[in-house]
Amino acid sequence: MNKQTLIQVHNRVKPYIHKTPVLTSELINEICETKVYFKCENFQKMGAFKMRGATNAILSLTEEQRNKGVVTHSSGNFAQALSLAAKKIGVKAFIVMPKNAPQVKKNAVKTYKGEIIECDSNPIAREEMAEKVRIEKGATFIHPSNDDEVILGQATVAIELLEEYPQLDYIFTPIGGGGLIAGTILAVKYFSEKCKVIGGEPINVDDAYRSLLSGKIEYNDSNSITIADGLRTFLGDRNFPIIKKGVEKIIRVEETEIINAMKLIWERMKIIIEPSSAVAFAALLKDKENYKNKEVGIIISGGNVDVTNLPF
Amino acid sequence: MNKQTLIQVHNRVKPYIHKTPVLTSELINEICETKVYFKCENFQKMGAFKMRGATNAILSLTEEQRNKGVVTHSSGNFAQALSLAAKKIGVKAFIVMPKNAPQVKKNAVKTYKGEIIECDSNPIAREEMAEKVRIEKGATFIHPSNDDEVILGQATVAIELLEEYPQLDYIFTPIGGGGLIAGTILAVKYFSEKCKVIGGEPINVDDAYRSLLSGKIEYNDSNSITIADGLRTFLGDRNFPIIKKGVEKIIRVEETEIINAMKLIWERMKIIIEPSSAVAFAALLKDKENYKNKEVGIIISGGNVDVTNLPF
Repeated sequence: MNKQTLIQVHNRVKPYIHKTPVLTSELINEICETKVYFKCENFQKMGAFKMRGATNAILSLTEEQRNKGVVTHSSGNFAQALSLAAKKIGVKAFIVMPKNAPQVKKNAVKTYKGEIIECDSNPIAREEMAEKVRIEKGATFIHPSNDDEVILGQATVAIELLEEYPQLDYIFTPIGGGGLIAGTILAVKYFSEKCKVIGGEPINVDDAYRSLLSGKIEYNDSNSITIADGLRTFLGDRNFPIIKKGVEKIIRVEETEIINAMKLIWERMKIIIEPSSAVAFAALLKDKENYKNKEVGIIISGGNVDVTNLPF
Repeated sequence: MNKQTLIQVHNRVKPYIHKTPVLTSELINEICETKVYFKCENFQKMGAFKMRGATNAILSLTEEQRNKGVVTHSSGNFAQALSLAAKKIGVKAFIVMPKNAPQVKKNAVKTYKGEIIECDSNPIAREEMAEKVRIEKGATFIHPSNDDEVILGQATVAIELLEEYPQLDYIFTPIGGGGLIAGTILAVKYFSEKCKVIGGEPINVDDAYRSLLSGKIEYNDSNSITIADGLRTFLGDRNFPIIKKGVEKIIRVEETEIINAMKLIWERMKIIIEPSSAVAFAALLKDKENYKNKEVGIIISGGNVDVTNLPF
């Protein structure tokens, strides 16, 4: 693993992804008393950064593996990402989803030609079903966040951001399964001399924060809910060591802080972001005293939200 | 009036405005079976193209006129645009608004340091009050759409779009007071050999459509309502002759078509646009059979919408 690896990954995924724009707002700079650069992965294909990791994971397979397809379990953005990446590369994707997943999410996967395999709605059933598909179909299992190639793919967000704005002092990302922040830490390590990585996490599902404190992977209560529903997942053995070593700080935010940050971006930036994406910006707003007169990148992770059912 | 005039106007307003991005969507191209380029004035300063016309109108004043300030009547985007442009140029702005205008619109004007002067809520009271301010303060009256310098300022949207995409076959704009479409017609005349201008108008307030048919300025019933509330205003003697001579066609759309077009852009483009902005796209969707395999520009006029009160 070195800078050359990351450059190769970026070159490999480039034909399949958008180079997303970086937006700024004078008013938000005034509010934060610092310069803020929003890297807009809500404009990524299928609407989230997950497209990058899914694409890289599939491209890293051998010809033989590709012929047998890929499988994952997800009812969120990774389900769509793996389906679309597989379709573009010409590989079959099996998506294990809970029976009670919202129809709109199932439809999105179907649009991208992913084959849905239903399971009961609990983590064990989900993993058992994915394992069953893996064995029966010979498909390669790709975890949404705890996978080296997925992590390398997600690193390309920060690579692009730092190529455009090498002067950044900080990059903020949300923390869910840990793939995005782990990739960001790797990118920063090789593409910046000074930039530090800060994580934003909902206080209701602060497993990463607690994992840093205890030094081992912690979990959330299965009843814990947050509007940032993409961030309920846990860290894993591939990304936790990277995060533990490289993250500067994790800032925890309340639900109301997430909603307010989301609304501020909608109203002032005129862009649609999902609640999970607002968590990194909410973290900056909460702790802005510590980032005055700096250059701060914020990764807007995605824009897939039901516009008919908003929290404001 | 020639191409040089437009170039001078553009150079004059440039330091005060954003060059807004042009966005595209593969899915929307598929739906429309044509190539669509969205010129995103929702990302303009204060959130709408009106900033351009307001800026140019103030910059065209003499030093003596600037010292006495400007006045307009508007409760919409032009109220904010004139306030912000005046603030940036260092001129006083008086904004005549109906007493019952929403507090959020009054607050927006105040943010930009416009001085609000209240009047009764009818067109005559509004014009009388603006005239009173004009005489008492010596301020120059600037009409939101029926003013030569405003029209020239609005022309800069299409100038930028055609500089970036000279191959466009059509540009679609919404029609309200007529300033944007008149400016677009002027820009197309001097910056394209082949491009044609199409207007989109809500069927509920189709005064421009009827004006073209009768050959004289027609009005809307004062009770007519549309979700595209920015488009309820009428054409005037400055812009109607330009529109009459230069518009290719006006396509009228139903309220449901406006809402569906708006929702499609929100969901697929991940950008926030106001209902008036969706009218031009709704017109293309309605009449798409006539624009297959072409290059079509759509002007997204603005993004100022109450996100807590959506039509879907």
